[in-house]
Amino acid sequence: MIPIRDDLRGLKPYGAPQLDVPVRLNTNENSYPVPEAVVEAIGKALQAELRDLNRYPDRDAVALRADLAAYLGHGLTTERVWAANGSNEVQQQLLQVFAGPGRTALGFTPAYSMHPLLAKGTGTAWVDGYRAEDFGLSAAHAVAQVERHRPDIVFLCSPNNPTGTALDPAVIAAVLDAAPGMVVVDEAYAEFARAGTPSALGVLPGHERLVVTRTMSKAFGFAGGRLGYLAAAPAVVDAVQLVRLPYHLSSLTQAAARAALAHRDALLATVEAIKEQRDRIVSSLRGRGFRVADSDANFVLFEAGPDQKAVWRALLDRGVLVRDVGLAGWLRVTAGTPSETDAFLEALS
Amino acid sequence: MIPIRDDLRGLKPYGAPQLDVPVRLNTNENSYPVPEAVVEAIGKALQAELRDLNRYPDRDAVALRADLAAYLGHGLTTERVWAANGSNEVQQQLLQVFAGPGRTALGFTPAYSMHPLLAKGTGTAWVDGYRAEDFGLSAAHAVAQVERHRPDIVFLCSPNNPTGTALDPAVIAAVLDAAPGMVVVDEAYAEFARAGTPSALGVLPGHERLVVTRTMSKAFGFAGGRLGYLAAAPAVVDAVQLVRLPYHLSSLTQAAARAALAHRDALLATVEAIKEQRDRIVSSLRGRGFRVADSDANFVLFEAGPDQKAVWRALLDRGVLVRDVGLAGWLRVTAGTPSETDAFLEALS
Repeated sequence: MIPIRDDLRGLKPYGAPQLDVPVRLNTNENSYPVPEAVVEAIGKALQAELRDLNRYPDRDAVALRADLAAYLGHGLTTERVWAANGSNEVQQQLLQVFAGPGRTALGFTPAYSMHPLLAKGTGTAWVDGYRAEDFGLSAAHAVAQVERHRPDIVFLCSPNNPTGTALDPAVIAAVLDAAPGMVVVDEAYAEFARAGTPSALGVLPGHERLVVTRTMSKAFGFAGGRLGYLAAAPAVVDAVQLVRLPYHLSSLTQAAARAALAHRDALLATVEAIKEQRDRIVSSLRGRGFRVADSDANFVLFEAGPDQKAVWRALLDRGVLVRDVGLAGWLRVTAGTPSETDAFLEALS
Repeated sequence: MIPIRDDLRGLKPYGAPQLDVPVRLNTNENSYPVPEAVVEAIGKALQAELRDLNRYPDRDAVALRADLAAYLGHGLTTERVWAANGSNEVQQQLLQVFAGPGRTALGFTPAYSMHPLLAKGTGTAWVDGYRAEDFGLSAAHAVAQVERHRPDIVFLCSPNNPTGTALDPAVIAAVLDAAPGMVVVDEAYAEFARAGTPSALGVLPGHERLVVTRTMSKAFGFAGGRLGYLAAAPAVVDAVQLVRLPYHLSSLTQAAARAALAHRDALLATVEAIKEQRDRIVSSLRGRGFRVADSDANFVLFEAGPDQKAVWRALLDRGVLVRDVGLAGWLRVTAGTPSETDAFLEALS
C-alpha cells in the first residue's frame, strides 16, 4: 500500500460525472458556444504565441492582470489583481499563504464544496459555521461564528453556490469588522446577480484583508480556458507570489484570456439571456409548487422531493443531467438556453 | 500588516530575472523556436477547441495521458501517467498527498531549487542531505541520509539541475531499497542525457513507491505551454487525484500538448544540436582552464571565479544572460544555438 496521508485515505476525487448526454445542466457552464468572431480573435491571439512556445511565459502575467483590472473597474490596477488556472488555484494559493498547517478556515455550508477540500489539501483546519435551515446567512450568525472560531481565513460566497442567492452586503461588512484574519468573497457568479446587487469589489478600499475572487468560467463562457482571478490590496498580491508556482499561467492561457476580455461585449451578451432562463426556471418551478431558492446565479436550487437521487436518475434517463450537490431533497440545475430549459421542465413533469 | 504565515514572511518569490537581452541562457529554455509545420499543427488543434471553450475540459485528460504514455514507452499506459501545468504542479501534488504537515521531504542540494520551496508551500518539513564537495552523490551517502531522516518523500534529480550530471542508477536503486516512503526522480532533462544513461522509467515495474517526473518545457521546446507529467504505479495516479484541482489542465493545454507530442520528431530534432553545443561549451571551458561539471542536460555549470556575481554582471553587460544559482563561485549557462554559444564564449573571454 502506498503511503498517502491518513487524512486523505478513503476520499474520492472531487468532481461531477462528465457524461455525454444531450442536455448538460450540472456544472454551471455557460451553454452558449463561443461566437464565431471571438473564436477568430482568440485563434489569432494564440497563433501569435506558437512560434515562441519554447520560451517561458511572462511569469507575472502583467498584461493579462491589467486587462482584468480594467474589466473589473472600481479603480483597480494591475498590482491589485492576480490570476491563476481557475479560481480554485487562486483560492488554494490564498490558503497556502494565509492559512495552512496550524491555521483555520471558516465557511458556511452549503456553499462551494471545493472550499473545505482546498483547506484539506493545504493542511488547513476547516470549521463549518453552517447556514440557516432556509440557506440564509445573517450578519449576527456569521459574526458569532467568526468570534467563536477566530479563523485565519473566512470564505463567503456571493452569489452563493449551490443555493444561488447573493449575500446581503451587511453580512460582508460585519464579517470584515469581526474577522481577525483574511476574508475571501467568492464571486464566481457575480455577473448573473439581479439588478441592485453590489459587488464586494466596492468595499476593497480601506479593507486590506478582503479578497474578492472571480472566474471567467461562467459569464465569459471560458470554462475550458481555465482562468480565475482575484482583486485585493497590493500586499495580498505580493503575498500569493510567495507560493505561486513559477510560470503557472501558460502563454496560451494568457493570450486566450486577453482575447476573450477584449471581446467581452460579445461574450457577456449571453448573460441577460441566461438570467431570463434562470428566472423562468424559478417561476415555473414555483408555479408547480416546488420550493426554490432565490437565485442571483446561472443556476437554480430546487426541492426535488424526499428522494432527490431518484429524481436525478429519472432526469438523466430523459437526457437531462442536473447536479445532486449532496443536499438531501434538493437538486441544482444550470440555466442554459431556452430549449435546454424546455427539456428540463418537460423531463421534470 | 496582512496575516501571512510566519514561515513565509520575508521570503522573496522564486524566479530568475526575466530580462530582454539578446542572448538568454538563464532558464534552460530550448533556444529553437517551434518549427513552422508544428506551429501550424498546434494552431489547428487549438482552433478545434475554441468554439467549445464554454465547456470544462476533460478533467482526467485521458487522451493526453495516453499520448504521453506512448511517448515514454517502457510499456506505460494511461493509468500510469498523470499530467499537470508544469512538473512543479506535479511535484506539488505529490507533496500534498504523500507529505505535507507533520511529514518530511529529503533532497540533496545543490539540486532543483523548487523542491524545498514546494515543500515549504505544502507545509512539509525539508531536510537537506547535501551532495559532496564535487557535487557527486554516492549510494552510501544517500542511503545514510535516508536511514537517518526516514523521510516520507525523497527527491532525486537526474540529470541533476544545476550541476547537469545524471545519477548512477545504483544510487536510485539503493535509495529505493532504503526509503520508507516515496522516491521521486525528477528527470526534467532526461532527453539530453549522454548515450548509455538509463531512465528510472525502466525501474518502475515492481517499485510502487517510485515516481518519475518529466516536462515538455526543455527537449520539446514547450516551456510556454506548461506541461509536466509523471509515470508511476496506477495507485500513485489515483492518489494525486485526491488533491489535484478539478479541471486543472485547460482544453487549450491538452490540445496543444497533444499536437506537440504528435510532432515529436520535428520538435526533438533540436536535441542533438543542443547536446553538441553543450559538449562544445564543456570542452571550450575546460580548454580555458575552468572547472566544469559533467553535463547530461542542456546546460553547463562552470566555476566562474571567486566573485561569480561580478562575472554574471559582466556577461549581462555584454548581452548574455546566464544564471547565478546561488552557488558561490559557480554559474550555469544554457546550451542553445551555435551563435549563442559563440556569443557566450566570446563574452566570457
